[in-house]
Amino acid sequence: MIAYFNGSFLQKEDIHISPDDRGFLFSDGVYEVVRAYGGKPFKMAEHMDRLARSLRETRIDFSGIADLAVAGAKLIAMNGLTTTDSILYFQITRGVAPRKHTFPDPPVSATVMILISPAPSSVEMREKGVGAIMVPEFRWSRCDIKAIGLMGSVLAVQQAKEKGAEEAIFVRDGVVTEGTHTNVLAVFNGHILTHPLGHFILPGVTRGVVLDICRKIGIAYKEKSFRAEELNRASEIVITGTNKEITPVVRLDGRSVGSGAPGPVTRRLQEAYSELVRG
Amino acid sequence: MIAYFNGSFLQKEDIHISPDDRGFLFSDGVYEVVRAYGGKPFKMAEHMDRLARSLRETRIDFSGIADLAVAGAKLIAMNGLTTTDSILYFQITRGVAPRKHTFPDPPVSATVMILISPAPSSVEMREKGVGAIMVPEFRWSRCDIKAIGLMGSVLAVQQAKEKGAEEAIFVRDGVVTEGTHTNVLAVFNGHILTHPLGHFILPGVTRGVVLDICRKIGIAYKEKSFRAEELNRASEIVITGTNKEITPVVRLDGRSVGSGAPGPVTRRLQEAYSELVRG
Repeated sequence: MIAYFNGSFLQKEDIHISPDDRGFLFSDGVYEVVRAYGGKPFKMAEHMDRLARSLRETRIDFSGIADLAVAGAKLIAMNGLTTTDSILYFQITRGVAPRKHTFPDPPVSATVMILISPAPSSVEMREKGVGAIMVPEFRWSRCDIKAIGLMGSVLAVQQAKEKGAEEAIFVRDGVVTEGTHTNVLAVFNGHILTHPLGHFILPGVTRGVVLDICRKIGIAYKEKSFRAEELNRASEIVITGTNKEITPVVRLDGRSVGSGAPGPVTRRLQEAYSELVRG
Repeated sequence: MIAYFNGSFLQKEDIHISPDDRGFLFSDGVYEVVRAYGGKPFKMAEHMDRLARSLRETRIDFSGIADLAVAGAKLIAMNGLTTTDSILYFQITRGVAPRKHTFPDPPVSATVMILISPAPSSVEMREKGVGAIMVPEFRWSRCDIKAIGLMGSVLAVQQAKEKGAEEAIFVRDGVVTEGTHTNVLAVFNGHILTHPLGHFILPGVTRGVVLDICRKIGIAYKEKSFRAEELNRASEIVITGTNKEITPVVRLDGRSVGSGAPGPVTRRLQEAYSELVRG
């Protein structure tokens, strides 16, 4: 696949990351994942806005966000992915400098990379649902920044996989926050609850789209946190994300959620989402 | 400088990290820093033991630790650093695989890198002391693992630098834990207190050496936590680490610590440490 690296388009295999890249030494970088449907990036502007926010919050100096969106679209065309679904991965690090914790002084240019790959099919997950486990939160307390320091998520989701589940849902001080790479919404008496924005969850683009859909089609929701023991009593649970889209969680810690099959609220959301992304 | 990468010795400039390296994409790796005095690595075995522990805790599969110590020593010779002080940097990541949070399946080889550089002089810091600031903890809760996910430390120590200080000291729920790349010891009525081992601090090799020294030369100490407001009343504060060695903190949040100069307990520790590393 052709990729983008520091202003050039090249084969991914020809990208050489420096051993002094702060992304490699300090996880000093941020990222975004954008899904393109039939060659069209979905919510590119929202993802680029969030990328700009992540850069601001981490004080990484990079002003070429607008060019990145263009480069991403170009990669779709260059790789012949204009009629299928693909995943664009954007990563920006604080650049290359001899190892020292403080920001490079004098400043150096950020490292900018875009990778692309065909999107995996989400049909099975969407239709059948997946399992999830709950794990105690142990990541940092700035989960609102989409940073590449993901070891906590890696260890948690691996634990899920080994228990036959697809996602690990974090519980911070008893409260359900989000998944390792998804936001979590739960249905109680027909109403959706999801953790409010703040430092403990990513402001998910798909989460935002889903809440928009709720308003449009008249599903009641509240951005209000709930506890782990409450999640056990939800009639439906969905995880949302660029890759996971709207995926029903039908087993939680090995027990059935609701009827054990995707529920009616989930189905309405999926239908509306599907129309939106293909629209 | 000649470096080591996946079994080969080569110029550092010739190391090419893959864009798919999990160290770069997920901060899915661990590291160690070893200081060599006059060409002799100090406490290499302890650092390699801790590296093995970090690998175990993060479930990164790599069995060549013993070879790494040898390769590190060889780098000192190959780079003509046998009579001066140098810094060896070891990093191991979970390897190269297409981006997916769960561990690569089938497994891939770990990425193994050793870099070397001349050690910066620590004389001035040691003699004059440095400033530090206290910051609320916001890193993950497995600070005992020496993982490359260091963005929290980067942001905190940069804040210190901008306030004219050298180190940021984390405060978790009111309790002083450790610095961004040091452990913290404080003197109260001639007794040293330092945060006990556990998930919230790195089991510092230098910290261990300092406590050994305390036992040998008869300085009373306790591994017992203390609160931020207590640290404000310490007569002496030191930060310890492979690079920082035993550095006195003479200003905390802009106010003098004790007399504002390195104190008598600090001096005794420094003297004993100096004998040890040159011995």
